Amino acid sequence: MKNCCFASDNTSGAHPRILSALVEASAGYEPSYGDDRYTLQAQEAFRRIFGPESQTYFVYNGTGSNTLALGSMLRSYQCVLASDVAHIQGDETGAPEKFTGSKILCLPSVNGKITPAQIEEKLDVLGSPHAAQPHVVSVTNVTELGTVYTCEELTAICQTAHSHGLLVHLDGSRIANAAVSLGKGFAQITRDCGVDVLSFGATKNGMVFGEAVVFMKGCDAFPFLRKHGTQLHSKMRFLSAQMLAYLKNDLWKENAAHANAMAARLCAGLENIPGVQIEYPCQANAVFVSLSEAVRAALEAKYDFHDVGKNASGKLVYRLMCGFDMKEETVDALIRTARQG
Amino acid sequence: MKNCCFASDNTSGAHPRILSALVEASAGYEPSYGDDRYTLQAQEAFRRIFGPESQTYFVYNGTGSNTLALGSMLRSYQCVLASDVAHIQGDETGAPEKFTGSKILCLPSVNGKITPAQIEEKLDVLGSPHAAQPHVVSVTNVTELGTVYTCEELTAICQTAHSHGLLVHLDGSRIANAAVSLGKGFAQITRDCGVDVLSFGATKNGMVFGEAVVFMKGCDAFPFLRKHGTQLHSKMRFLSAQMLAYLKNDLWKENAAHANAMAARLCAGLENIPGVQIEYPCQANAVFVSLSEAVRAALEAKYDFHDVGKNASGKLVYRLMCGFDMKEETVDALIRTARQG
Amino acid sequence: MKNCCFASDNTSGAHPRILSALVEASAGYEPSYGDDRYTLQAQEAFRRIFGPESQTYFVYNGTGSNTLALGSMLRSYQCVLASDVAHIQGDETGAPEKFTGSKILCLPSVNGKITPAQIEEKLDVLGSPHAAQPHVVSVTNVTELGTVYTCEELTAICQTAHSHGLLVHLDGSRIANAAVSLGKGFAQITRDCGVDVLSFGATKNGMVFGEAVVFMKGCDAFPFLRKHGTQLHSKMRFLSAQMLAYLKNDLWKENAAHANAMAARLCAGLENIPGVQIEYPCQANAVFVSLSEAVRAALEAKYDFHDVGKNASGKLVYRLMCGFDMKEETVDALIRTARQG
Amino acid sequence: MKNCCFASDNTSGAHPRILSALVEASAGYEPSYGDDRYTLQAQEAFRRIFGPESQTYFVYNGTGSNTLALGSMLRSYQCVLASDVAHIQGDETGAPEKFTGSKILCLPSVNGKITPAQIEEKLDVLGSPHAAQPHVVSVTNVTELGTVYTCEELTAICQTAHSHGLLVHLDGSRIANAAVSLGKGFAQITRDCGVDVLSFGATKNGMVFGEAVVFMKGCDAFPFLRKHGTQLHSKMRFLSAQMLAYLKNDLWKENAAHANAMAARLCAGLENIPGVQIEYPCQANAVFVSLSEAVRAALEAKYDFHDVGKNASGKLVYRLMCGFDMKEETVDALIRTARQG
Repeated sequence: MKNCCFASDNTSGAHPRILSALVEASAGYEPSYGDDRYTLQAQEAFRRIFGPESQTYFVYNGTGSNTLALGSMLRSYQCVLASDVAHIQGDETGAPEKFTGSKILCLPSVNGKITPAQIEEKLDVLGSPHAAQPHVVSVTNVTELGTVYTCEELTAICQTAHSHGLLVHLDGSRIANAAVSLGKGFAQITRDCGVDVLSFGATKNGMVFGEAVVFMKGCDAFPFLRKHGTQLHSKMRFLSAQMLAYLKNDLWKENAAHANAMAARLCAGLENIPGVQIEYPCQANAVFVSLSEAVRAALEAKYDFHDVGKNASGKLVYRLMCGFDMKEETVDALIRTARQG
Repeated sequence: MKNCCFASDNTSGAHPRILSALVEASAGYEPSYGDDRYTLQAQEAFRRIFGPESQTYFVYNGTGSNTLALGSMLRSYQCVLASDVAHIQGDETGAPEKFTGSKILCLPSVNGKITPAQIEEKLDVLGSPHAAQPHVVSVTNVTELGTVYTCEELTAICQTAHSHGLLVHLDGSRIANAAVSLGKGFAQITRDCGVDVLSFGATKNGMVFGEAVVFMKGCDAFPFLRKHGTQLHSKMRFLSAQMLAYLKNDLWKENAAHANAMAARLCAGLENIPGVQIEYPCQANAVFVSLSEAVRAALEAKYDFHDVGKNASGKLVYRLMCGFDMKEETVDALIRTARQG
Repeated sequence: MKNCCFASDNTSGAHPRILSALVEASAGYEPSYGDDRYTLQAQEAFRRIFGPESQTYFVYNGTGSNTLALGSMLRSYQCVLASDVAHIQGDETGAPEKFTGSKILCLPSVNGKITPAQIEEKLDVLGSPHAAQPHVVSVTNVTELGTVYTCEELTAICQTAHSHGLLVHLDGSRIANAAVSLGKGFAQITRDCGVDVLSFGATKNGMVFGEAVVFMKGCDAFPFLRKHGTQLHSKMRFLSAQMLAYLKNDLWKENAAHANAMAARLCAGLENIPGVQIEYPCQANAVFVSLSEAVRAALEAKYDFHDVGKNASGKLVYRLMCGFDMKEETVDALIRTARQG
Repeated sequence: MKNCCFASDNTSGAHPRILSALVEASAGYEPSYGDDRYTLQAQEAFRRIFGPESQTYFVYNGTGSNTLALGSMLRSYQCVLASDVAHIQGDETGAPEKFTGSKILCLPSVNGKITPAQIEEKLDVLGSPHAAQPHVVSVTNVTELGTVYTCEELTAICQTAHSHGLLVHLDGSRIANAAVSLGKGFAQITRDCGVDVLSFGATKNGMVFGEAVVFMKGCDAFPFLRKHGTQLHSKMRFLSAQMLAYLKNDLWKENAAHANAMAARLCAGLENIPGVQIEYPCQANAVFVSLSEAVRAALEAKYDFHDVGKNASGKLVYRLMCGFDMKEETVDALIRTARQG
């Protein structure tokens, strides 16, 4: 069987400290559905990060987090502006449209990013009853192409959105990797830039299951929406205990920093190999490459990895992800294989 | 803090063998989204139970399981017939209606059960474009009131449904407790009675998270529906490994048999206490009681438990659940408290 | 072919003054989608009736009117309280659930009516994330069983709803017949009782097509919802011109008064006939009867009419409607047929 | 007030023969909801056009027609492929997504058209549970940019779609103008090319209200979907009688031929005027132009008309529509105004 370790950061298992926390939380009886002490502590931990006005709710997975976050922000006649490579557009089987009833309008991205000017171009329909009304801008950081929005870029997007009455959602499936990449904290790269609602990812960075939705100014309706949207866990302690371990002693940072470092090592090792072209700036835990036929064949013989479509020259672009537990020697082995390809 | 051990069977943690299996599954890389070897084995284990035609898919929770099962069976202009105490009607915040777009038509239940005659009464609208078209009968076993449909009762319901072109969904949130109560296997009390789609519960009976949807004759669309409905776990191995442990050496039966025995012990201990009235036959792992004011006050001082509405005489009925890890002494302590009330 | 004139008030054609107005509106070019002068005038006419704060929007039909009215009032995790004989529950093929995603909770009705006490009984779930949250009470006037809520009854319902933060929708499919029955104006029997949103029916009372949704305090989102909900007519002038004619010189009142009078005549003629039992008070333009086998057979030989289910004694109850253009001799002929049955 | 006659073909009233038919249909009682004799005749008339296997259902408007047609063809995890200028994408306020729950994937169009190759490029996701599954190709003829697909073009699209298991929907809001442009009959330019479901427009070409959905091979579920989707008219005779008049003596052809001729006259008159650039081939009843500042100002002083976005050079493109009742002198007057601009 081929090695799937570069296929995604969710081919990894969970971090040992996460597993221990989950196992320890099993002892004794606890109120269900989030009234347990682990959940109360975890919510308090998130309030310490995002401020007293914020509210954080735990859900099962990223698709659920994005879908319910958008569902809380939209009436069905409104729509979302997002990049054409957004996960919510291409990789969630239409879950957001199904739940919200809303359309996603795509903006062509450069290196996975969109700009304030592109947003403004879509706003001439505001007020027309014949067009879905743009009401949310959704951006992803780390982007789907492994790049990272700077705080300046994000702030500009948020200011543009807010100036027209729109809200900003951030798909933070790899928000820890973005924070490490930018050398900043969670709140700095989201709330402080103007993000209204954050889908806070954790599973890819070492958890068994579980993500969070963070409302910078609260959302009293979310407990209803979460059950209504099938994302409320009964034995919530098992999710919240993981979140506590994830935040404790900055485990999230340790994991993400390692993953980013491994991707940097991978990128550095690949960039001078003939037959390998780095396609996007490597700013977090993924490297995107196009490959000569020989290199592709050599890598595919040993590894399982995916393409993300074609570049401007019509060549397929492949994604190589590094998880929180990627080993240096594993990275080096792939580089050797590519060099021999 | 009051003891919540009788409040629900999801105030328990997870069984140690489940936890071990989850932790062990963390080792190494595995393909995500269900292509891992744990999932393949777990699906095979379910095929051994429900037959080669069956297909089983894993989801996060019971609301997701019910909602997506119904979603796979219905067009939105069709509707569901269910008991007026059905979990899908009263305890899922409208999740099934939201996802399916379909109406749930309620039938008044006796001891939590509905009958073939009640189903037939609702079918005169078949063919009328002005009425939602009944297309699925959804029953719960163990019922929401702790009773258990016999195989004869279920078979009669399925035969009636099928004879009119309807399908049958079974909400098996406590299917293990039903199987133990009936002294039969999973397939005997579902597929062999005519059930088309089963929401197979496991979390309440000792798992950390995870349920299954079993299609007796397959459902090739379900992989799409599951992602579309936000219920696909990325690190699926963690769910599937639990399911393997749950089925291995009949852990499910051991857990459910214990829970049922504890409820029987509780019922036996309560039934002769003045001020305690057993409201429904105790056939699985719950006891439903109405209480004198003194007994209620005595119990509420120590225990957290919920009412499920009023009985015919207008008295509140309370539910006392026994989980897989309920201890005899805990049961006896509650009985003592009630006797002193 | 059997006579269908008693089958419904929509087996009638349109009133000549309505038809003339429609034909006259065809001359010349007019802006589409409601920017034409007929629509502006018609909206002004409704503002004169319901006050300067009100906003009125025209839609195609009653199901659209009810569905979009509810859609404007609800988030999908909220639910509607309505009578078990409500048109939205039994006669709209699940259209409201499909569009709103919300559940309808039924209250058992007496003579088609519900009470404040029944509403309050359903409100104990307010605040629980496990239950759809009651947010709208929907009542029908004239009710589906031909009775009419008094202003006192409606006011009590509205006060109860508002005191718990709920809104009130009134399905006024036959609102003109209710107004005539109560001897009051449109605003008196809706806005002044506390109704928040009115589905204002007109088609049954003499129009070709078209209904209105009246928001007592406005709804700026409705233009978007209407197009989003497929209920915006392009050549709106044809709908609005009918509405103008409908309101002009109280044509609505003339039509409804005649229909009500014909039903009263029918009721008076039938009530002493052996084999005919009047089932509900005849307060508007319908008579509900149970029939001996002989009378039923005699009537069915000549007339097309429908049953609305069984009464408490298990006998089928039939509905005989009188439209705006029912003739006295037609009524008398049916009475004669019944007498000879 | 400015003249709105070129703003759209729905700023016209209705054709006198349509109005007469509507008025005449008002006489006497008729069964409601489509069981009347006008509807039976109109459905028979459509069967004569589209063949004995076809089923035709009448609805209120184009958005309803498109939305319900798509709703009948899709499960919510499937998606639609359509051009980026499709009416369903940009001009229906998200109605299709709301009703179907499905995503619309846009293909960049040339002159309003898409190609088989573009469709095939989107099909690599077929089978992946992470992506909405393309299941319907929706094309518009006359396109939104006034061009007309030839039968060869449409056939190629249908063959490509069918060869991959997809269905084809045709938005025929101006299908009569397309038929006249191609010199062929309705069935020739739809069914015979492989179209599965046709949204048959009629309102723009002279009716008061009403469109049809034609299923080339039937759709027994549509009566339920239509009520469920709020598009069933109670007094259906008024819609069906118009349809009969529309088909009788080829009124549709007379109207569309006139409209097309007026657009050709307009195009011929404008194309040599300095400051006017014809942007797309004029093949039906619309002319699309970019304008010098002087011409634009001259035209806008007298006429109400709309832009449809910018061309490749960044200049706004304006649409000038000719309705069924456009007069030669009105066309000539606009040409004179442009020439003097």
